[in-house]
Amino acid sequence: MTARLVVGLVLVSVGVTATAEANLASWQEGPAKAAIVQFVRDVTDEKSKFFVPAAERIAVFDNDGTLWSEQPVYFQAAFMLDRLRAVAAEHPEWKNNPAYEALISRDEAQLARVGMKPVLELLAVANAGLTTEEYGASIRTWLKSAVHPRFRRPYTDLVYQPMQELLAYMREHGFQTWIVSGGGIEFMRAWTEAAYGIPPQQVIGSIAETKFELRGGEPVLVREPSVAFVDDGPGKPVGIYRAIGRRPIAAFGNSDGDLQMLQYAAVGEGTRLAVIVHHDDMEREYAYDRESRIGRLDKALDEAKARKWVVVSMKDDWKRVYRWENLR
Amino acid sequence: MTARLVVGLVLVSVGVTATAEANLASWQEGPAKAAIVQFVRDVTDEKSKFFVPAAERIAVFDNDGTLWSEQPVYFQAAFMLDRLRAVAAEHPEWKNNPAYEALISRDEAQLARVGMKPVLELLAVANAGLTTEEYGASIRTWLKSAVHPRFRRPYTDLVYQPMQELLAYMREHGFQTWIVSGGGIEFMRAWTEAAYGIPPQQVIGSIAETKFELRGGEPVLVREPSVAFVDDGPGKPVGIYRAIGRRPIAAFGNSDGDLQMLQYAAVGEGTRLAVIVHHDDMEREYAYDRESRIGRLDKALDEAKARKWVVVSMKDDWKRVYRWENLR
Repeated sequence: MTARLVVGLVLVSVGVTATAEANLASWQEGPAKAAIVQFVRDVTDEKSKFFVPAAERIAVFDNDGTLWSEQPVYFQAAFMLDRLRAVAAEHPEWKNNPAYEALISRDEAQLARVGMKPVLELLAVANAGLTTEEYGASIRTWLKSAVHPRFRRPYTDLVYQPMQELLAYMREHGFQTWIVSGGGIEFMRAWTEAAYGIPPQQVIGSIAETKFELRGGEPVLVREPSVAFVDDGPGKPVGIYRAIGRRPIAAFGNSDGDLQMLQYAAVGEGTRLAVIVHHDDMEREYAYDRESRIGRLDKALDEAKARKWVVVSMKDDWKRVYRWENLR
Repeated sequence: MTARLVVGLVLVSVGVTATAEANLASWQEGPAKAAIVQFVRDVTDEKSKFFVPAAERIAVFDNDGTLWSEQPVYFQAAFMLDRLRAVAAEHPEWKNNPAYEALISRDEAQLARVGMKPVLELLAVANAGLTTEEYGASIRTWLKSAVHPRFRRPYTDLVYQPMQELLAYMREHGFQTWIVSGGGIEFMRAWTEAAYGIPPQQVIGSIAETKFELRGGEPVLVREPSVAFVDDGPGKPVGIYRAIGRRPIAAFGNSDGDLQMLQYAAVGEGTRLAVIVHHDDMEREYAYDRESRIGRLDKALDEAKARKWVVVSMKDDWKRVYRWENLR
């Protein structure tokens, strides 16, 4: 009876693994998938020297360009543009603001030059005075009607199917999956639970100042016209430390803004996983890296080669990019 | 067979509830325990109009004075004092700093006057240059040898047994239990998982600035000599919003520093639970409220009476305060 029990357990164990890997149905067999699966096996196998207890299985994912598309502009920029237009008349001082002019004229070169902080500052000013609940509602309303200029679909249709499968696969193996993005935290929290199964408390992002007040006796948080924290580049490990307090053992990114997060996660005891999603599929999505103004991948690509990080080719490693495409 | 199955399910359901309540063994039967248990029943009963899905069952707990003792001074102040003494020679400029003088001379009146921010700033300066890993290690080392002046025990022996039972009880009912404290986030993360079963990512606290660096090629976060965020009073709802992104449905505190957190959680659809732990047991712990310099409870006590929040009497509602006492 003891022997039968052992056999039964082994079968169950193999069964779980086989099912989970079968669920990576949009991934081609190849070195990227093999490296990810091997890592997950190593840290979940109690007999492995690389075993990691479930509580420490923290995996962090950039959002724009890693879990969904980010071209021709960050999707949040499209939202911001609509918000800015709605309140521009109240802000004549924006006329000479380079970030505002770049946004309104969709001048990508200028947007890249001014950087993320002035853009987040503009948004903070545009939304100042809204309660956090009102702001969340404005995002959800916008998402319902907004359409991507190339794919003519809601933006939330442009999440990467292989990455969704990967998130589910890692969670099945006891990982906590966290988003760590330069984007505004509320813009993601409005939809990541439905789209990725990632709840609001596992979303780390850039943050505006908010202030507690009793508005008509009702306790609310009101947005202030200033930025509290920019969760990009070297800010990402800081955001991770503040929110999680543990060093991740796996990190996924696609651009130089993810470099420090990848470095931070890639070092430490045991085995680590650092993955870069490489946009090399002009036909099904977009092809860009070292020269791109959005999601530039240059230093992190060099580092990936030097450190033997996993580089996922969207063209070669993914049987489909979006859920609504056929597998190939 | 259908009938038997239904009976079986009912028995299982009653069994779980009875066990969980039996585990509130250090709570006297009385209005406080009854109110807490009723709230938990309401939000977990799918047939109740107050039912709340598990993902939204967020409960927040102040730490000092709510989950463990805070007299004669916040335990973190004892740690800080030792840290300050260790580096004071390197900081001659502290000689005229009121927060430093109050700490070194244990002048509680002066400490209360200067407030929390200058004290946190001193600590930030004292620990600047340490990596976050080094700082965490210094806390764990201190906790191993430090002893409470009255009880002559390690500080972590002074966690409240009834609150530990309550944390476990709420988690058994699908709640996420979060700490929301004015104390430094690292000082709690060093021991809350072992003591309360609350992992680092569910600890919200005050935060020093940290900076990502490659130190000898190794990616680390280094503490800066400044405070990034004070998670106290009106800062608590802000800290909750940043970390969780959802309004809690239950909040537990013991002082005016918890007032805004209690207000924030106590309002919204459905039923809500706001609880104040009242220190009225001089014999087993301490007795203090409106006049105390540490953990003053004045406005929040008025608000509790006006809003019919639950006020827990440590003397009457708890059969024991600490795990190592006999039940009475």
